[in-house]
Amino acid sequence: MSKKIIVNGTIITMDRSNTLIKNGAVAFEDGKITYIGEELNDLSIYDEVIDVKGDYVIPGLVNTHGHASMSLLRGYADDLPLKQWLEEKMWPVEATYTKDHAKWGTYLSIIEMLRTGTTTFVDMYDNMDEVAMAVDHSGMRARLCRGMIGFGSEELRQSKLEEASNFVKNWNNQADGRITTMMSPHSPYTCGPDFIKKIVDKAAELDSPIHIHMSETRAEVELNVKEYGERPVKHLENLGMFEQPTLVAHAVHVEDWEMDILAKYDVKVSNNIISNLKLASGIAPVPEMLSKGITVSLGTDSSASNNNLDLFEELKQVALLYKGVHNDATLIPAEKALRLATNHGAEAIWLENQIGSLEVGKQADIVVINTKQAFYQPAHEPVSHLVYSGSGRDVKDVYVQGKQVIKNGECLTVDEERVIFEVNRLSKEFA
Amino acid sequence: MSKKIIVNGTIITMDRSNTLIKNGAVAFEDGKITYIGEELNDLSIYDEVIDVKGDYVIPGLVNTHGHASMSLLRGYADDLPLKQWLEEKMWPVEATYTKDHAKWGTYLSIIEMLRTGTTTFVDMYDNMDEVAMAVDHSGMRARLCRGMIGFGSEELRQSKLEEASNFVKNWNNQADGRITTMMSPHSPYTCGPDFIKKIVDKAAELDSPIHIHMSETRAEVELNVKEYGERPVKHLENLGMFEQPTLVAHAVHVEDWEMDILAKYDVKVSNNIISNLKLASGIAPVPEMLSKGITVSLGTDSSASNNNLDLFEELKQVALLYKGVHNDATLIPAEKALRLATNHGAEAIWLENQIGSLEVGKQADIVVINTKQAFYQPAHEPVSHLVYSGSGRDVKDVYVQGKQVIKNGECLTVDEERVIFEVNRLSKEFA
Repeated sequence: MSKKIIVNGTIITMDRSNTLIKNGAVAFEDGKITYIGEELNDLSIYDEVIDVKGDYVIPGLVNTHGHASMSLLRGYADDLPLKQWLEEKMWPVEATYTKDHAKWGTYLSIIEMLRTGTTTFVDMYDNMDEVAMAVDHSGMRARLCRGMIGFGSEELRQSKLEEASNFVKNWNNQADGRITTMMSPHSPYTCGPDFIKKIVDKAAELDSPIHIHMSETRAEVELNVKEYGERPVKHLENLGMFEQPTLVAHAVHVEDWEMDILAKYDVKVSNNIISNLKLASGIAPVPEMLSKGITVSLGTDSSASNNNLDLFEELKQVALLYKGVHNDATLIPAEKALRLATNHGAEAIWLENQIGSLEVGKQADIVVINTKQAFYQPAHEPVSHLVYSGSGRDVKDVYVQGKQVIKNGECLTVDEERVIFEVNRLSKEFA
Repeated sequence: MSKKIIVNGTIITMDRSNTLIKNGAVAFEDGKITYIGEELNDLSIYDEVIDVKGDYVIPGLVNTHGHASMSLLRGYADDLPLKQWLEEKMWPVEATYTKDHAKWGTYLSIIEMLRTGTTTFVDMYDNMDEVAMAVDHSGMRARLCRGMIGFGSEELRQSKLEEASNFVKNWNNQADGRITTMMSPHSPYTCGPDFIKKIVDKAAELDSPIHIHMSETRAEVELNVKEYGERPVKHLENLGMFEQPTLVAHAVHVEDWEMDILAKYDVKVSNNIISNLKLASGIAPVPEMLSKGITVSLGTDSSASNNNLDLFEELKQVALLYKGVHNDATLIPAEKALRLATNHGAEAIWLENQIGSLEVGKQADIVVINTKQAFYQPAHEPVSHLVYSGSGRDVKDVYVQGKQVIKNGECLTVDEERVIFEVNRLSKEFA
């Protein structure tokens, strides 16, 4: 394999000691980082020397919750109450979805994520073979799961459980290790306790982590109390879920004692700050969760409720919102926000030994930001510029596992023009 | 003058009837719009036919509050309490500012605004001749004022008042009418009642509108009550300010009865939603002000507290935040948010007959958005895509008064590379 080195970069490593190297270099080989530091004198051992002329070099971002296939529904319905949005708009269209929808919707999402510096994403949906094949082909990294809704017959549930288990068996550690998997009951309000228990048992048998929606809306929490006598966190604890490594999406409506339970079991949280605002679900207690030591990461949710997958927007939003809401300008400073999207993202999906920071031995998931623009001037503080002034649109080059997938803003592995044609062909059929 | 026409556009006019024309055309001549509608058959009368191939065509955005010169302080200090941020960081550096700082800081801000689709901005600062000259040269549109802080001697106040008055006399309606002016006491907490009264009298004499910071923080409101026995709105009403056309920046801490006073006098509001969050000032009651018929527009404030001037971020933020805070997904829908940044922006600076929508007879301030990207697909709902999925970085071409100032993302009137060099030269001196 060829040896490559990025030189003349402003390297924002996001390692534990928060190393920032001006005029630094990052070398990689066989998909892994082999050197990070001051610029070297002898570059002759490298097959390719990439001079980024002062641009920022950061670890690829990690988007810990979403439904890539749903990008076909971007802008299909906005500014509606959640119930009407779901029941009158999302569900009827999703019921018409085929493998083709999953495939092209996923490609659209992948292009958007790669182009804005996300190199790893979590996905929960159906037709997951299509999603996995798109991930494989695009060169992206993902932790994927077949989300199971428990409505309908026992046979239907059983067949979903089998499909989900087979997906884990077939795809975990595939695509050169870029694809990992989870088991996923959709939520406590769409899966009865028996079904959840079965999924948890199967996850234990398969040694698989679990991903679930939890406490996104107040109504959902109240329903849980009404039906099962407990709020969702206690309910899921009682069902033994947290004995398995678990990533919960949302956790908007969690009380102090519930956060203590999440912390006790090291349950990971995907905070979907923009989607939660847009659907009027509420504002999750992120500073409180962080102070309890909970691993809070960032997710976009689907582009039907966001409406894009540019994680830079979540980055800025999480650094802004709590300051304003709690009247404290020191809450979640820029560097912490960037950690949520990098280190915490990696920890939230149990890949912290592989990704989430630029360190020797880790995977070469690397993003280069074009800083030769007004937004990054004067050159005061790179991390501040990245979080408060930057945009995912400023991403120039992206490498995943050492392979370049974005060059000068263009996707090398997926044909954006073709994808745009296909998603418009498919979405024309929606009423 | 040459006749130009943009063809094959998705024209988002933002006129009263919310006309959206797919496959439409916009023609302009002598700086004004001469035709909007379905595409014409005979294009031979035009000197230039610009085929935008389906891209969105929108009116230029209006940024109604900022301090362009302060872009030199972007990222110089973040995540600090307001008092410390101002007293230890901003004021000491600003005290060292020269005309050179004002000039190059303004050019940096102008590039950022033009590149992200803002064609008109409001600026309050000192060294305003430098700001006005940069506006003139860049081809941008602005309503400018010399902000007066009333500290120090009577002589100092008198000289500032003279400088501000001369600025209004010298620059109003200059630069082919692209520059208009205001009189501007900085705020009720930096200007005593006597000084404010003098400024108001002078504004009346000059037939000039007034711009002022008001009720940005809770502390400032409390101080006003302590010192003058009234909250700022009543205080300024008592001083006769609202008899003149007035634009207030912020209005974060205004009670219901205060909003009634603002509505009664048709006082315009510049909401600075991102800056208010970042400095932990609070969340202004925008939905309440709108429901009282107050003209609420959007401003970025300076890039020292934002940290960019991309008004698309305010657009999305105002459409998101209130939904989440008030648990109502129908609040400030996408189209309304876009109106705040266009129609309301124009009304807020009394230019609604000239700008703020694409209509025949209005100024040709036109922005073209590159929609041949994943973020704008599938092609469901242009205004939703623009507000929820778009970014100022997607702006392709910009015209002000019919003159092209941005082409394929590059500024034609100001040399970005030179500006970047100069702002870094100047900011290196900051401690």
